[in-house]
Amino acid sequence: MTQSFTSFIPPTRVLMGPGPSDVYPKVLEALARPTIGHLDPKFVDLMDQVKQLLQYAFQTDNALTMPISAPGSAGMESVFVNLVEPGDKIVVCQNGVFGGRMQQNVERCGGIAIMVQDDFGKPTDLNKVREVLLANPDAKALAFVHAETSTGVLNDAKALCQIAKEFDCLSIVDAVTSLGGSELQVDKWEIDAIYSGTQKCLSCIPGLSPVSFSEKAIAVIKQRKHPVQSWFLDMDLVMGYWGQGTKRAYHHTAPVNSIYALHESLLILQEEGLQNAWQRHFKNHISLKNGLDKLGLSLLVDEKYRLPQLNMVLIPNGVDDALVRNRLLTEFNLEIGAGLGSLAGKVWRIGLMGCGSSQKNVDYCLSSLETVLN
Amino acid sequence: MTQSFTSFIPPTRVLMGPGPSDVYPKVLEALARPTIGHLDPKFVDLMDQVKQLLQYAFQTDNALTMPISAPGSAGMESVFVNLVEPGDKIVVCQNGVFGGRMQQNVERCGGIAIMVQDDFGKPTDLNKVREVLLANPDAKALAFVHAETSTGVLNDAKALCQIAKEFDCLSIVDAVTSLGGSELQVDKWEIDAIYSGTQKCLSCIPGLSPVSFSEKAIAVIKQRKHPVQSWFLDMDLVMGYWGQGTKRAYHHTAPVNSIYALHESLLILQEEGLQNAWQRHFKNHISLKNGLDKLGLSLLVDEKYRLPQLNMVLIPNGVDDALVRNRLLTEFNLEIGAGLGSLAGKVWRIGLMGCGSSQKNVDYCLSSLETVLN
Repeated sequence: MTQSFTSFIPPTRVLMGPGPSDVYPKVLEALARPTIGHLDPKFVDLMDQVKQLLQYAFQTDNALTMPISAPGSAGMESVFVNLVEPGDKIVVCQNGVFGGRMQQNVERCGGIAIMVQDDFGKPTDLNKVREVLLANPDAKALAFVHAETSTGVLNDAKALCQIAKEFDCLSIVDAVTSLGGSELQVDKWEIDAIYSGTQKCLSCIPGLSPVSFSEKAIAVIKQRKHPVQSWFLDMDLVMGYWGQGTKRAYHHTAPVNSIYALHESLLILQEEGLQNAWQRHFKNHISLKNGLDKLGLSLLVDEKYRLPQLNMVLIPNGVDDALVRNRLLTEFNLEIGAGLGSLAGKVWRIGLMGCGSSQKNVDYCLSSLETVLN
Repeated sequence: MTQSFTSFIPPTRVLMGPGPSDVYPKVLEALARPTIGHLDPKFVDLMDQVKQLLQYAFQTDNALTMPISAPGSAGMESVFVNLVEPGDKIVVCQNGVFGGRMQQNVERCGGIAIMVQDDFGKPTDLNKVREVLLANPDAKALAFVHAETSTGVLNDAKALCQIAKEFDCLSIVDAVTSLGGSELQVDKWEIDAIYSGTQKCLSCIPGLSPVSFSEKAIAVIKQRKHPVQSWFLDMDLVMGYWGQGTKRAYHHTAPVNSIYALHESLLILQEEGLQNAWQRHFKNHISLKNGLDKLGLSLLVDEKYRLPQLNMVLIPNGVDDALVRNRLLTEFNLEIGAGLGSLAGKVWRIGLMGCGSSQKNVDYCLSSLETVLN
């Protein structure tokens, strides 16, 4: 017989790691409203609103814009399994952990990933991308991470998409950490396929992945020679449920309550305004940066391509990484992130995402760090 | 610019369709507690409790027992992508929509699905299964749906697993609608791989899929020649995060709040006791059946293999299917399910699942139906 457990009452943390970020109280309220059926007309109306609100967040008119019913890594997979067929060449830019995950995805689809490698902490080198595309005129797509959550680098999405266009490639963009936090223009930049997460700059609960596909991407999907290897993520089937009109074919049972939460978080974003949200993320980043300077702490990433919502702080010599994070968590209920991949032990990742991007959080983080480091 | 929308306040429905079922208020409360990090030690403790509680619900000691961070159809996919390699023969029993989805999964993994077909509304014929396995001694697995949500039939899982054993096949079981509602014994019946959903007899929110794999299934996964085609559902990677001990490798960001909810719903199941839950589902089914008799309504499925938690009511001649369901929804806030696949327009699906399996719901459904049909 299993042990007897009791209801779980989580501690109230301040989430300043790489995500999940603090969730808006109104989003948690929405989350807990009574569940209704996934084919209920009221729910279908809500789905339509969520699609429109996501179009605003992504700055796109793409009809195929909706949340995948699973976390960002499933969103990533939805893009690759639908666009990549066996033998396809995909140029993948890697300057962090998530570029490597893209490579895994391409290869598990039977595609050939041609890697453009840059150091963790540096941006993707546009010249290298051009060279690789010149050498591979048959490449089908250029894939890159807009905001590298593992390194705190903002890649130049606009320029990379232009290069993809020049070489007649689809552009595939990981916007997990950028959506709602940094400028992102799906239509203006002509992005063909993009995925994000709800638990970063949208300050929603983790578990959903907003995606958007251009008409060009849809045409590529429609011309596939092989069936999509995933039934769950086959966009043709998913769209039977999320598609236009009131007639919806059952595909899977949507995570109804999570969709309530996403809707609420997108309402909050719309109310603030995208540009205002981007500016707020930048302003609080500068404030954190100035405070870190005073503490004698410096950032890994050069100012030119530094991500405002995720700050990579170099761990000073002689300081015990795990001990500091543990003290912050247990004494201050403050979560900051550890380094990932080759940056493990070398940096802390301090997130200022969504409603967590506030002067209050900046101050709390700085004062807590100061206490622990002294 | 997108239209301005307001917060979504769902109607309070009585959910008596094929799922989602009514969610326990305590589960919604747990869902809305503050989000914490997916690597927070407190969350890791919770994950361990959830694993143990799921072992109880599945009646198994399988170490590899955890919830997939996506709906039941992703749970189904997690089983097939991990166990099926290109060229593998899988015998799939189909007597409803979900057996067909299993076939899709096998084929999208490059496997060969050998189908055992029975009519929708009839159980899988054990003799046919034996014949097919005799004719295919190289079959790797026998896959079937325990409780067919599309037809209301309970297949004889115990006998089917014994047959799989006889023929040295892995057994793969869809328990989306049976877990918590009908007897299910993963260890006693020697089930090798099983998946379920949270939105049926657990009365939890939709969006997670509990799975369990036997040691034998794990050995098969470890001996794979080809990488698992899904990165998100690769159990080897998933287990790095959900595995034993306090050291957890980041794989994806867990749907933290949904896990709170699942934990709470499993606590409620443990408190009631599995056997009591099964008996309650049966008792309320009998009560509904007696009431339907009085209304002159009959059930599609023979008593011997009728599913207590999902009742297939034959739509009387001359009655407008959609109109009745619409009136129940709009006038009574009562959701019942439409027929699926070849049963569309022929049956209603009345669910008595989880906390929705109550005398109160039975009475409400009968009196509402009586009003609408007269």
